[in-house]
Amino acid sequence: MRPTEIEAIRQQLPGWLEASLPCVSRGKVAAYIPELSKAPHAALGITLLNTMGESATAGDCGLRFTMQSISKVFTLILALMDNGEDAVFSKVGMEPTGDNFNSMLKLELVRPGIPFNPMINAGAITVSSLIHGDSPSEKSDRILQFLQELSGNAGLEYDLGVYRSESETGNLNRSIAFFLKENGVLSGNVEEVLEVYFRHCSIAVNCADLARMALVLACSGTDPLTGNTLIPRRYVQIARTFMTTCGMYNASGEFAIQVGLPAKSGVSGGILTFVPGRYGIGVLGPALNDKGNSYAGVHLLQTISREMNWSIF
Amino acid sequence: MRPTEIEAIRQQLPGWLEASLPCVSRGKVAAYIPELSKAPHAALGITLLNTMGESATAGDCGLRFTMQSISKVFTLILALMDNGEDAVFSKVGMEPTGDNFNSMLKLELVRPGIPFNPMINAGAITVSSLIHGDSPSEKSDRILQFLQELSGNAGLEYDLGVYRSESETGNLNRSIAFFLKENGVLSGNVEEVLEVYFRHCSIAVNCADLARMALVLACSGTDPLTGNTLIPRRYVQIARTFMTTCGMYNASGEFAIQVGLPAKSGVSGGILTFVPGRYGIGVLGPALNDKGNSYAGVHLLQTISREMNWSIF
Amino acid sequence: MRPTEIEAIRQQLPGWLEASLPCVSRGKVAAYIPELSKAPHAALGITLLNTMGESATAGDCGLRFTMQSISKVFTLILALMDNGEDAVFSKVGMEPTGDNFNSMLKLELVRPGIPFNPMINAGAITVSSLIHGDSPSEKSDRILQFLQELSGNAGLEYDLGVYRSESETGNLNRSIAFFLKENGVLSGNVEEVLEVYFRHCSIAVNCADLARMALVLACSGTDPLTGNTLIPRRYVQIARTFMTTCGMYNASGEFAIQVGLPAKSGVSGGILTFVPGRYGIGVLGPALNDKGNSYAGVHLLQTISREMNWSIF
Amino acid sequence: MRPTEIEAIRQQLPGWLEASLPCVSRGKVAAYIPELSKAPHAALGITLLNTMGESATAGDCGLRFTMQSISKVFTLILALMDNGEDAVFSKVGMEPTGDNFNSMLKLELVRPGIPFNPMINAGAITVSSLIHGDSPSEKSDRILQFLQELSGNAGLEYDLGVYRSESETGNLNRSIAFFLKENGVLSGNVEEVLEVYFRHCSIAVNCADLARMALVLACSGTDPLTGNTLIPRRYVQIARTFMTTCGMYNASGEFAIQVGLPAKSGVSGGILTFVPGRYGIGVLGPALNDKGNSYAGVHLLQTISREMNWSIF
Repeated sequence: MRPTEIEAIRQQLPGWLEASLPCVSRGKVAAYIPELSKAPHAALGITLLNTMGESATAGDCGLRFTMQSISKVFTLILALMDNGEDAVFSKVGMEPTGDNFNSMLKLELVRPGIPFNPMINAGAITVSSLIHGDSPSEKSDRILQFLQELSGNAGLEYDLGVYRSESETGNLNRSIAFFLKENGVLSGNVEEVLEVYFRHCSIAVNCADLARMALVLACSGTDPLTGNTLIPRRYVQIARTFMTTCGMYNASGEFAIQVGLPAKSGVSGGILTFVPGRYGIGVLGPALNDKGNSYAGVHLLQTISREMNWSIF
Repeated sequence: MRPTEIEAIRQQLPGWLEASLPCVSRGKVAAYIPELSKAPHAALGITLLNTMGESATAGDCGLRFTMQSISKVFTLILALMDNGEDAVFSKVGMEPTGDNFNSMLKLELVRPGIPFNPMINAGAITVSSLIHGDSPSEKSDRILQFLQELSGNAGLEYDLGVYRSESETGNLNRSIAFFLKENGVLSGNVEEVLEVYFRHCSIAVNCADLARMALVLACSGTDPLTGNTLIPRRYVQIARTFMTTCGMYNASGEFAIQVGLPAKSGVSGGILTFVPGRYGIGVLGPALNDKGNSYAGVHLLQTISREMNWSIF
Repeated sequence: MRPTEIEAIRQQLPGWLEASLPCVSRGKVAAYIPELSKAPHAALGITLLNTMGESATAGDCGLRFTMQSISKVFTLILALMDNGEDAVFSKVGMEPTGDNFNSMLKLELVRPGIPFNPMINAGAITVSSLIHGDSPSEKSDRILQFLQELSGNAGLEYDLGVYRSESETGNLNRSIAFFLKENGVLSGNVEEVLEVYFRHCSIAVNCADLARMALVLACSGTDPLTGNTLIPRRYVQIARTFMTTCGMYNASGEFAIQVGLPAKSGVSGGILTFVPGRYGIGVLGPALNDKGNSYAGVHLLQTISREMNWSIF
Repeated sequence: MRPTEIEAIRQQLPGWLEASLPCVSRGKVAAYIPELSKAPHAALGITLLNTMGESATAGDCGLRFTMQSISKVFTLILALMDNGEDAVFSKVGMEPTGDNFNSMLKLELVRPGIPFNPMINAGAITVSSLIHGDSPSEKSDRILQFLQELSGNAGLEYDLGVYRSESETGNLNRSIAFFLKENGVLSGNVEEVLEVYFRHCSIAVNCADLARMALVLACSGTDPLTGNTLIPRRYVQIARTFMTTCGMYNASGEFAIQVGLPAKSGVSGGILTFVPGRYGIGVLGPALNDKGNSYAGVHLLQTISREMNWSIF
């Protein structure tokens, strides 16, 4: 009897991961937040989950790490669910930038001064300001709850050490937020908006959590394991598109060419990606390349995508 | 008996086109090349072609216009066929820019100074320099021949009036080319490279020609009407990806969100797009929006894509 | 008997001022700080003071207004007196920028990220952080005292309404300050540095106060009316140079060509300038041109400088 | 009897030059034009000339080198004499930029797209296009003749080797010129304008020639040795101002602070400067610092200016 696809993947996965491990030594763990620099440099792990609930795993897939920018995908979705398309896109654009994720350049060069897209920090901070709730903690809790639901893991929690570290040292994000405030893009109290932003960046997950969240996106908003529709189809489509055009910082174009899957990475070394209709995937590899993406993680996804012929293009 | 999809489209198409016509008055015909400004401002036409060779058409789909930037997709493919991936991507990057198509900004800001991607002018001029051939005219003829083959139309020819007009007034492209030369990106004689570039921009087509070329991309490089494989699958994949991330100038992100199909537009008002595996599409609408894309053409494609649920995301 | 120069100026001054008054209607009072927008739009006044203590005045020279950016000249001098040249210029550069006074662009484009010069906001905020003192209020008081001494007016005080208005709405300056903090240029607490900065911007003066301060600069640091040396000669030289190359925002080059005197303007419509060795000059004209300088004030200074042949070039 | 100032300078000059010589090893000879890279790396020379015709010299002041950007001062003056202030400043601005001399950035960012000032390449190329004459060679000859007259050296000639080298490799200047053409700033044939520009950059001089030209500027347009007025006073004033605010590339601000004299440098390592009313000065030191100015030359001028207390500020 021929092995099922998930069985075939299980067999190959350790070898593919092995082949990507040497990349680890070429990358660097993010150090701009002190707490992040404690991540295990040499780690590499992956979880793939199919619509039957079968998974394939390899390496350090059980390690906990913070979502960081990966959370931007889901705050965008929640902001869309809270406010609708028109309200959200009056505050944030739809264009990829090609710029470094830290750049404030585009905020100045472009009229009318709204952030280019919701995946860059300026855009994601703006999105955080749009989440409904009476207080920063209520907003944060709504985001956390949404992610608990999507991951099927009611135990998801903030990593408060990372949250505090990020909040204390996040001066570039403060700079961006005050610039947005000055330009009328951000309403409300800047520090309160940043509290929401720093909090959702600090939600701790493992590869299995990411894979399950990704599976919901892969299935257009419906969790195939429960049958529950958690996100309207159109908002998943929007999220997928942004993940494709600007999910991997200023290497998004290259990732689209070389891997060809919608994805979002974070500076903790995590990558959330999926194969439409088929697999949710979570990757962890804290050693980053110079674009801020997991060095070995990108290599591993490139290998799998080519071998399995998974590019959506 | 239920109508086939193409029959259904044929029935709806006139209405959809009708609904997009008012956009025409909001746009402007490109005037930066004198010859282009003669295009019929109010025109709008579309041709869809399926893998059985059945087509649906509406409006001014028989009008002739020059390919302009649409040709960049095919010179990229030919350069890849001539040189391979590594050689091409050592000279031109893979990242969308979010910048206006005319901007030289990114050429300066980014190290090592290679163009961001092959869809912006700087990138396409670089790609033109990579086409094999002993002389500008030999290179140009190879491109023309390639497009004749792809369109199944041996009669495709240059519009020499547009070519001359563009060559005479193309000072921004000259500026870009000399900048690339200075930075060692462009080898060879600048004016000869520009001759090749201006020539392929001036190849005249109609909507049916575009639809047929697009159908080959939709079918991963094989013309479904002849069975001939004209482009290696991998190079089609690369072209599709660029069309998705940066085919519509600095409205590429919005087009991906609102239409969700790989596409490439030109300042003549043409758009080439396709539905993977199913349809090649050619559109003409010379009145442009402020991003340089056909105002009514984009509107029409948005309508059809939503009605037919064609977004790839 | 021939009239002395000051007598001749007294005679001509009303006519020159009259001729500049029409400019008032072409300018706009600064509105970005609510409190500033209350300034009398049509006002125009000037005081010239020579080394004998004789003055010539015209128009609304008795009106009180806040120093705003004019204070940057004196915080630079105080920072030099507190820290020396090397320490100051390790944190802030010496180059004019040509950029709009609000631009953050140069902060990003230039390595190693220090502000271009002490006359732009980023530079002046950095300078504020270098003023000695155990607390923001002690630092502010030292600046106020220094200006009281220079103006010979012990009654100089903050305009607390403007201070509060500026502090509440100064989000762009907050954005700049956090960017500087992120880049290691600013040490200490950002809000405390900004308190010092907003306070010295809000010190209220009239034209006579400015003229007296300017006279000290005109006389290389020694007050000719008391004989007291208040500033080391070298630091006056440095201040004079910056006033010449970048004292009038991104119209500094034009002012140097058309007027040819070291000068510093503020968004309240004040201009401090001087004729080396001879006159201190204070001007007020709240209606600003599009570069942020007093429309009528610049016109008036251009007239006087040409008539008196005062350009230093 | 006390020595005259020139005698005192003669005595000190060898020591000052000696003290600046070590800088030579820290600099690099310009290599971007092949012909320039042949300049003697270790050379350093200076000539000072006073209004009596007495000179003080040291080092390699007899070496011949091309004027390069130093010529921009005189083409500006000639363009002013040919066209008047209004016509010239409708095509080129008055603001220093702080940017690298090669940058095209500002051409794009600023409206309406005219060059920032006549001392950057974009501005000087524009100025070249304004020189009267029926042909490139007639324009070039008028510039050469003007410089022969100013230097009192009828033997001044082009260095044709440098001219050809520069013309062949000047792709960045070509890029700039076509950009200016595109924006309507440059009229006429681009290659003809560039011929004029490359030619005046290639006029060969020695330190004595520069000192004599500078002396005319020091004396407001009148050659003190012949009594002939060669330049209207106002145009000298304009040139002096630009030399002060933007004569030393993006180290102009620092030079104003540290030396305090109007000056213009060239990539050949020459510097023309003067003490108003008193001295014309020519310097040669081909080893450049990272801003494109003579490393040892700037050091030498800083020493002399401080010792003699010559800063105009």
